[in-house]
Amino acid sequence: MTNTNPARGMRDFLPAQIRRREYVIGIIKEVYESYGFEPLETPAVENLETLTGKYGEEGNQLIYKILKRGEKLEQSASEKELSDLALRYDLTVPLARVVANHKNDLPRFFKRYQIQPVWRADRPARGRYREFYQCDVDAIGSGSMIVEAELCAAVSEILTRLGFEDFVIRMNDRKLLNLLVKDSGISEEQATDALVALDKLDKIGHSEVEKELIKRGIGTDEAELFVAVFEGFAGLEEANRSQNKIGFDASNQAFLNRWEDGLDENDLAGSQVLKELQQIISFTEKTSANKYIKIDASLARGLSYYTGAIFEINVPDLAGSLGGGGRYDGLIGMFGKEQIPACGFSLGLERILVVMEERGMFPKELETNSADVLITIWNEESIGESLKLAGELRQRELRVLVYPEADKLGKQFKYADSIKIPFVCVLGETELAENKVTLKNMRTGEQETVLREDVVSKLKDLPLQNK
Amino acid sequence: MTNTNPARGMRDFLPAQIRRREYVIGIIKEVYESYGFEPLETPAVENLETLTGKYGEEGNQLIYKILKRGEKLEQSASEKELSDLALRYDLTVPLARVVANHKNDLPRFFKRYQIQPVWRADRPARGRYREFYQCDVDAIGSGSMIVEAELCAAVSEILTRLGFEDFVIRMNDRKLLNLLVKDSGISEEQATDALVALDKLDKIGHSEVEKELIKRGIGTDEAELFVAVFEGFAGLEEANRSQNKIGFDASNQAFLNRWEDGLDENDLAGSQVLKELQQIISFTEKTSANKYIKIDASLARGLSYYTGAIFEINVPDLAGSLGGGGRYDGLIGMFGKEQIPACGFSLGLERILVVMEERGMFPKELETNSADVLITIWNEESIGESLKLAGELRQRELRVLVYPEADKLGKQFKYADSIKIPFVCVLGETELAENKVTLKNMRTGEQETVLREDVVSKLKDLPLQNK
Repeated sequence: MTNTNPARGMRDFLPAQIRRREYVIGIIKEVYESYGFEPLETPAVENLETLTGKYGEEGNQLIYKILKRGEKLEQSASEKELSDLALRYDLTVPLARVVANHKNDLPRFFKRYQIQPVWRADRPARGRYREFYQCDVDAIGSGSMIVEAELCAAVSEILTRLGFEDFVIRMNDRKLLNLLVKDSGISEEQATDALVALDKLDKIGHSEVEKELIKRGIGTDEAELFVAVFEGFAGLEEANRSQNKIGFDASNQAFLNRWEDGLDENDLAGSQVLKELQQIISFTEKTSANKYIKIDASLARGLSYYTGAIFEINVPDLAGSLGGGGRYDGLIGMFGKEQIPACGFSLGLERILVVMEERGMFPKELETNSADVLITIWNEESIGESLKLAGELRQRELRVLVYPEADKLGKQFKYADSIKIPFVCVLGETELAENKVTLKNMRTGEQETVLREDVVSKLKDLPLQNK
Repeated sequence: MTNTNPARGMRDFLPAQIRRREYVIGIIKEVYESYGFEPLETPAVENLETLTGKYGEEGNQLIYKILKRGEKLEQSASEKELSDLALRYDLTVPLARVVANHKNDLPRFFKRYQIQPVWRADRPARGRYREFYQCDVDAIGSGSMIVEAELCAAVSEILTRLGFEDFVIRMNDRKLLNLLVKDSGISEEQATDALVALDKLDKIGHSEVEKELIKRGIGTDEAELFVAVFEGFAGLEEANRSQNKIGFDASNQAFLNRWEDGLDENDLAGSQVLKELQQIISFTEKTSANKYIKIDASLARGLSYYTGAIFEINVPDLAGSLGGGGRYDGLIGMFGKEQIPACGFSLGLERILVVMEERGMFPKELETNSADVLITIWNEESIGESLKLAGELRQRELRVLVYPEADKLGKQFKYADSIKIPFVCVLGETELAENKVTLKNMRTGEQETVLREDVVSKLKDLPLQNK
């Protein structure tokens, strides 16, 4: 017998799951549109060359490649000869391609959102799938920190509207990290190694990061110096944590003050980072992102294309992140003649759903059934009348099932009950003769026979289950 | 420089296109839900074995196969060793797999809709893409013609709500075709050849179909007899066309009468076909499908899995069809132990969009812009206030853009004008000092300064362009 499971790491979504997914997607779209972001969609299949070299070595390995058509296959073909198409790996690189391609059709400040699946040939694990949705939002064309502030406000609004209250938007800046790497005496060639090690700080702690740095060939002195900086920041945060229960104002201010105090007045790069972080904090003060942003100098983020502010959204009960993002002023330039500044966020739909599921955050209305009312079939001759009644009720915005067979009435009731339809309309011999309908409330068992033209208003008056 | 086009046969959708697509999809979903169909989604990637052998030889050739991960590749690998995954080719086979897999979780009469892209490695042409959306609706579990009638009513309601008035749902029955093949003396082995040739009748005419039959090895007598039957039906239709300008009642009745008259009373198969076609016609009489269904004995449809009624939707100004469907009582049994009857329709989103575009059928509201109002930035210091105002307006369901830079005011107005934003809110020095906002109507040029708390109600009163 054929295997009827979906392919490994992929999922089928039954109606109840779709309703939850669409509820979350609906709120995401609504909020993004209220910020002036517009929808964009790109194909699932991209030219392989569009994707390669954008995600780092590890990412490259996870790209699904599509086999060229049979007739083109050569027996001893290399992988390159076998494939020139691939499945979309994220939504940022396709965006950069589209922006470079449509430069003249798009507004100077192009704000787009995109909610589509991506595919990664990763090892499946709890909460990790090979097909999953990303909800991306990006603002193209401006280097101003207004962009960062609006993005933080938009994602905060989405999360609070979904019912999240305990999320943190951790913020850092790639330029700041680069400065800290440099100040510790670590060479530019080893900067990536340093950041990869730093990225593990949350999980393994300071002393293990130091060991990792040394293992990766960074000098003992440099490693010690580098780690000491983050120990200092961590101490600072600890000291300021208790002072301010709501939000991170105190620890953010302490960080900015410490950074400012340590600045050489000729350090233009350092001043620039300071100014940008200060701006993002101050611009978001009167927005929905207030209270949620926390400067975390140890945040590194994996992707190689970030050039400025970086973000990651966390909740206490999830090991991974709900989303993340940052500024990538160099990516679009890889596709066109022109460097165009850009900044964006990506929310992970699957992660958001997992946490909402575990916390029971979905509204009760989503636990719905397939219809408001089921219409019975009396006999072959009256089928047309049942279908006609169904049409009338549907015109009045009721969701209507017609029982598909001329079964015994008891069986039809039983079926309505089994799939939790709140009302049944019986069009029997008497009802047809008298131009009436018998309406049965499946929860209370009550039934009454009403004039056919009154059915709709009767049903509209009754509280429909889960409506 | 990198190629920034989408892959061949694939498309990027910019905001204006997405809005049109979502408008059509929205109506399709709304109607299907009112009929009690529930949403289902399946992964883009399926196990290759799920798809092979379901679409006929030609279909098989068009399936996109995914390359196994690099490390598994062998130099002299055959195509089978190179790939065990493939991209979804239609939505019916995945449905059959899901139904077989979830037999016990699904209601006995499972009604689902599914709106997702499919991929075919076809030669791209005008209106033919390698990635395109299908909008499928299927009812599982019943062999009753109520199912066919409801499906015809649902798609008719969708098309009329979209503004189509001149579509025809051509209807035939695979069992009828099989009888006609048999009666003409054509062998069972040659039945597929006969239907493939017949499928071209619309394009090439009766005498060319006869030649094609002979070319495919069918005897001259059998070919002549087979074609003569359809010439007879065509004459019948012609004779009844003028009698009934709206709908096809007369020609449908003439066909059914002719069929009945020719029936041997012991011909159970022939009587069954007659009864089913009569039922579909009579059940739909009082539904939205009335007037649109036309029996067309020459309709064959390509897919091999149909077992009963088949349908195809046409409009005069499109060579292909807007959609089609039929009964396939054998497909689910290919995945499970049990034969489960099923019938469905698939609407082609891309075709519907093409015709609507050419006929100008989209409502004016869809020609919208990205926001209702743009808020200007006065200077660095007031950015927080502009963002705060934006938040207030968004709370009141306005779509709000904040200009992302502290540019000259004239430049900000010009930008709003260039992207057709109907109103601009100026938060200048005076306004900030007096807690006011200047509101400019970009179409009339009028502007007035109002109290900050009155901005929302002021904007809500004004007719927003395209709203």
